[in-house]
Amino acid sequence: MSYSQIKLDIADGIATVTLHRPDKMNAFTRTMMAEFIDAIDTTDADDSVRAVVVTGHGDRAFCAGADLTPDDGGHVFSDPNPVDDLSDERVRDGGGRLTLRLFDSKKPLIGACNGVAVGVGATMQLPFDIRLASDTARFGFVFARRGITPEAASSWFLPRLVGMQTALEWCMTGRIFDAQEALDRGLVRSLHPQGELLDAAMGIAREIADNTSAVSVAMTRAMLWRLGAGGHPMDAHRIDSRAIYRLSRSEDAKEGIASFLEKRAPAYPDTVGSDMPDFYPWWDQPEYR
Amino acid sequence: MSYSQIKLDIADGIATVTLHRPDKMNAFTRTMMAEFIDAIDTTDADDSVRAVVVTGHGDRAFCAGADLTPDDGGHVFSDPNPVDDLSDERVRDGGGRLTLRLFDSKKPLIGACNGVAVGVGATMQLPFDIRLASDTARFGFVFARRGITPEAASSWFLPRLVGMQTALEWCMTGRIFDAQEALDRGLVRSLHPQGELLDAAMGIAREIADNTSAVSVAMTRAMLWRLGAGGHPMDAHRIDSRAIYRLSRSEDAKEGIASFLEKRAPAYPDTVGSDMPDFYPWWDQPEYR
Amino acid sequence: MSYSQIKLDIADGIATVTLHRPDKMNAFTRTMMAEFIDAIDTTDADDSVRAVVVTGHGDRAFCAGADLTPDDGGHVFSDPNPVDDLSDERVRDGGGRLTLRLFDSKKPLIGACNGVAVGVGATMQLPFDIRLASDTARFGFVFARRGITPEAASSWFLPRLVGMQTALEWCMTGRIFDAQEALDRGLVRSLHPQGELLDAAMGIAREIADNTSAVSVAMTRAMLWRLGAGGHPMDAHRIDSRAIYRLSRSEDAKEGIASFLEKRAPAYPDTVGSDMPDFYPWWDQPEYR
Repeated sequence: MSYSQIKLDIADGIATVTLHRPDKMNAFTRTMMAEFIDAIDTTDADDSVRAVVVTGHGDRAFCAGADLTPDDGGHVFSDPNPVDDLSDERVRDGGGRLTLRLFDSKKPLIGACNGVAVGVGATMQLPFDIRLASDTARFGFVFARRGITPEAASSWFLPRLVGMQTALEWCMTGRIFDAQEALDRGLVRSLHPQGELLDAAMGIAREIADNTSAVSVAMTRAMLWRLGAGGHPMDAHRIDSRAIYRLSRSEDAKEGIASFLEKRAPAYPDTVGSDMPDFYPWWDQPEYR
Repeated sequence: MSYSQIKLDIADGIATVTLHRPDKMNAFTRTMMAEFIDAIDTTDADDSVRAVVVTGHGDRAFCAGADLTPDDGGHVFSDPNPVDDLSDERVRDGGGRLTLRLFDSKKPLIGACNGVAVGVGATMQLPFDIRLASDTARFGFVFARRGITPEAASSWFLPRLVGMQTALEWCMTGRIFDAQEALDRGLVRSLHPQGELLDAAMGIAREIADNTSAVSVAMTRAMLWRLGAGGHPMDAHRIDSRAIYRLSRSEDAKEGIASFLEKRAPAYPDTVGSDMPDFYPWWDQPEYR
Repeated sequence: MSYSQIKLDIADGIATVTLHRPDKMNAFTRTMMAEFIDAIDTTDADDSVRAVVVTGHGDRAFCAGADLTPDDGGHVFSDPNPVDDLSDERVRDGGGRLTLRLFDSKKPLIGACNGVAVGVGATMQLPFDIRLASDTARFGFVFARRGITPEAASSWFLPRLVGMQTALEWCMTGRIFDAQEALDRGLVRSLHPQGELLDAAMGIAREIADNTSAVSVAMTRAMLWRLGAGGHPMDAHRIDSRAIYRLSRSEDAKEGIASFLEKRAPAYPDTVGSDMPDFYPWWDQPEYR
């Protein structure tokens, strides 16, 4: 697939997805959604990719939200064939299609928010694992100021990241807030000068790529997001017991322990493509309907 | 309904509920519970009300907890007709009757904690969306120091607001803590000098009233509290897709986008009374039994 | 039971569990697991114990993780009789057996992390109610650097304590971090000079023992960990209504209110052994299979 609204670069084990609509503040469209989903399908399938950094083109915006006047069709909210049955697949929100795909990523997602991020430009970042921002970034969950509601499953994601009080305040006022507030409330883990932002995100990606097992990280990602969400710790015990039992006999575990005891860098042989444990995935994927 | 233990004032789109027992440090009684619930029924039904501020009368207390020696009957814990069946409605805790009603409020609830708040005086604040406090406020989840347990569904609410470690510490020690600790641990979002507290709370209410759609805010409130509590992000995607689909065709969405593009203040026509989307409420209300 | 790898001391209502393998940085073994579980069975059954402090022997380590070369058998991950059926009890992770037992403790657990805590040395602390650390402590959720995954049900516990973003960062990088970061991100509630750490933990235990009802604290612990994890606030209302109804008629409640009104120290008569409310436990214990 060739992309027109994002760029995908893969080098040294790290993929970079860049939202890329230079004249549109990287505003979100159905095309961008489809391309971003395709890029994650690609990074998941490519065993050379150990982490994914997501950023926006330019100095001004990460993503200015849904393009209200897109080039590639009508109004983002328009629908030439409205449906009555709200369980119809055509009702599905495009932001949510993207964030559910990001939720299932097998590779770590690291956000480098380089400017304005409002509406879906903010909510698409919530399923990232780690979020960094430039000190000039600004955020806004502006939906209540447009007569709509939070989307992209953000009502599930946002309280987990910043607590219920902050999630409610941001979504009920719809106000724009700056990078410092995003840091203080826990939305982003660190701020950086614009010129150093991408290097900082790359540094975390590098640390993961150089030191960890790909299978371990893919399993860890699925376990925390899924088992950390509710239920009883026995649910986690059931899965992590199976994981420890299988993976402790893996080639990666042998290499992990050997390299640790020998105080050298590891060289893990296992891949996400070939070596995920036999009980993965352990969940039934919920359907939209 | 005329109130004897609270006051309800409505002006300029903002309702103010004041706990009002001047000689009793606004201590909680069954009467206060019934009046507060009635006030929320009123603010929900009144389309002119866009936000609700809750505070306590005077400079000393928000609410000093359950009145252990109320004027309006026996001991707050006494029961002239004890029941054996614990699923009987008469067993239901009064604090929980109130907080479950607050949980279902269609209007944003903003707390202005003007002094001492202990026991149910602290737990009744947890379903508020945003909590501000005077720098002289003090809090205490003192139940373990009275031989009882946290009530008012606070075991559900408190960990969502301050994390599990702080919730456990506060409830297992039962100690009183000051406004600064409440801020540091995330219970309140900001501190204010006593004389400026109500204005600060009103400022947030004003920001919501002047800039957002009432339908959007009512939906946002229900979505975050309910979908942010557990489950899978698909649960949120299912609801927010329906919300975006319906509301993006609403008069409020047209006005929201038009006022944004025209850089003017919005004038939203839709009301909670008439224009909630057809699938609301989407949940089955759980029963006590 | 006499212990070889931990010490259990009980004095003045407070039990102290000390991980005790002086030459092994208190590394975790199956023996330590069994002894720690036995110690908690003991503190639960002993009505004189009001709180449990957990620390590690010496100045260097709380627990350096699973002993990769234990004296008491083969490699910690080895299994002379591997099983195919992953629901077999023999698959169960030892760290999880311990943390699930800690989760069900009737007494408050207060950690005093006196040094290095990596792997299961970090995850075993997550079901503690309150965690203090020396300013020389270091932590690491290092599993992805060993080719395995987080265990001990930590994928359930960790996001509840530090939020999803920090949990993901720590587990996906597997890096070691210092006491200050543990404090800043909310893993520990306070830092102390090494020589003052145990006194600080004892101080919190003392505050609980001297001021609260044992039954209230046991109920509070079960309610917050279980009802704070998901579901609807009605679930909490159902349980706390029953708790308030029963406990408000208890001898502890009479003493709690009397001592409060008389401004004197309480002397609670009820015990966890004899006086838990009749509906406790209210949950069905999940099985591993």
